[in-house]
Amino acid sequence: MIDAISEKTVERLSLYRRILEGMAAEGKTSIFSHQLSALTGGTAAQVRQDMRVLGYNGSSANGYDIAQLIESIGLFFRGKGCHKAVLVGIGNLGRALLAYFAGRSPYMEIQAAFDTEPGKTGRVIHGCRCYPVDELVPIIRRETICTAIIAVPDQAAQQTADLLVEGGISGILNFAPTRIHVPAGIYVDNIDLTMSVEKVAYFANKKFKEKE
Amino acid sequence: MIDAISEKTVERLSLYRRILEGMAAEGKTSIFSHQLSALTGGTAAQVRQDMRVLGYNGSSANGYDIAQLIESIGLFFRGKGCHKAVLVGIGNLGRALLAYFAGRSPYMEIQAAFDTEPGKTGRVIHGCRCYPVDELVPIIRRETICTAIIAVPDQAAQQTADLLVEGGISGILNFAPTRIHVPAGIYVDNIDLTMSVEKVAYFANKKFKEKE
Repeated sequence: MIDAISEKTVERLSLYRRILEGMAAEGKTSIFSHQLSALTGGTAAQVRQDMRVLGYNGSSANGYDIAQLIESIGLFFRGKGCHKAVLVGIGNLGRALLAYFAGRSPYMEIQAAFDTEPGKTGRVIHGCRCYPVDELVPIIRRETICTAIIAVPDQAAQQTADLLVEGGISGILNFAPTRIHVPAGIYVDNIDLTMSVEKVAYFANKKFKEKE
Repeated sequence: MIDAISEKTVERLSLYRRILEGMAAEGKTSIFSHQLSALTGGTAAQVRQDMRVLGYNGSSANGYDIAQLIESIGLFFRGKGCHKAVLVGIGNLGRALLAYFAGRSPYMEIQAAFDTEPGKTGRVIHGCRCYPVDELVPIIRRETICTAIIAVPDQAAQQTADLLVEGGISGILNFAPTRIHVPAGIYVDNIDLTMSVEKVAYFANKKFKEKE
C-alpha cells in the first residue's frame, strides 16, 4: 500500500499534522473531515481517503480524535527511521533555512551544514554545526543521513548534487534554480523562490493593470 | 496574446533570465534553443515556443543573442510598470526572505516590511524599512503596491490577507501553511517549506529503506 501513496497525499498529511497541532494547542479534541478539508482547501471525501492511508477505516460519527490523528501521522512519517538531513550552502538562504527549520519538523532534523568558504564553517548557526564541504561525503556516510537541502549558488548546484549522491543521499530538496541531474532512485524536489516571486509579481501586475 | 500566457511560461522566462545572465557574465554572447532547454530540463521546441511569446518569430541559425534575450525578458516582466512589493511578518522566515530577495530580482522590489510586534518595527532590515502592521493599508495605497509576501504564523495568515485585499494588492505569495481566501481577481501562489522538506524526507526515507 505504501508504494501507492502519492506526493499529494504526503503533502496533505504534512499539512494536516500542523493544523491539528494548532487545534490541539487551542484545546480542541476532535474534528470532522469537512472541517479539516475547509482548512486545507480540499474536499471532505479526500480527507477521508487520506485517513484510510493512515489506517482509519470506519465511519466518524463523532469526528476524528485529534491526538490520535497526530500520532498516526507521526507513525506514517517516522515509519522508516531515517530523518537526518544536511544542508549545503551557508549563504543568506542557507542561514535562513537553518533558522526556519530549527525544531520545526518532528520528521526532519538538519544535523550538519556545509560550505566551501572557510569563514562560514567551524561554528554553530541556529544550533547546527557547520563544516567545510570536504567533510560532506564522510559525514553523510558516517551518520547515515538520507536527506539533503541544496542552498548553494546556481553554478555549484550540480557539483553539490554529485557529492551528495556519492555520499549515499536518497532525497534532495534543491533551492538552486537550474535542474540537477541525479541517478534514478533519488527523489528530487525543486523550490525556486525567485521564480515564484517573479511569477506572482507578473500576474499581480497584469491584474493591477486590468483594474485601471 | 498576453492573456494566453500560462504560469509555466512565466516561470520558464524567469528561469531563462537568470541562466542567461550567468552566461553573459561568463562572456558568452549567443545560445541555441537546445542548449537553453538542456539547462532548464525542458525541450528545444518549448524554448522556441517561449521565444515566440517574446516576439522572436524567425529561425535561429546562429542561436539567440543573449543580451537581446535578457532585454526582451525584461520588457516582458516590466511591461505593466508595477513592481513594488511588501512583506508581512518579520520573524525568522520574513527576515530570511528580506535577505534573500534584496537586489535579486529586477522585476520585484520589497519596499516595506510589517509586523505586529513593536520590537520588530521602526528599523531597517537588509535595506528594507519595517513598520507596524497598522500602517499596512495606508502604505499599500499611497505607494500603489501590487504584490505582497505573507510570512506570518499560520493563525495570522487570513487576517493578513484581508488587510492586503483592503489595501488593493493584486498578487500574494503565501508562505503560511493554510489556504487563504481572497476575492476572485487576486492572484495567489503558496509555498509551504515545511511540507516540501517533510515530503522529501518521506520519499528519501522510503528509498533509503528500499536499498537495504
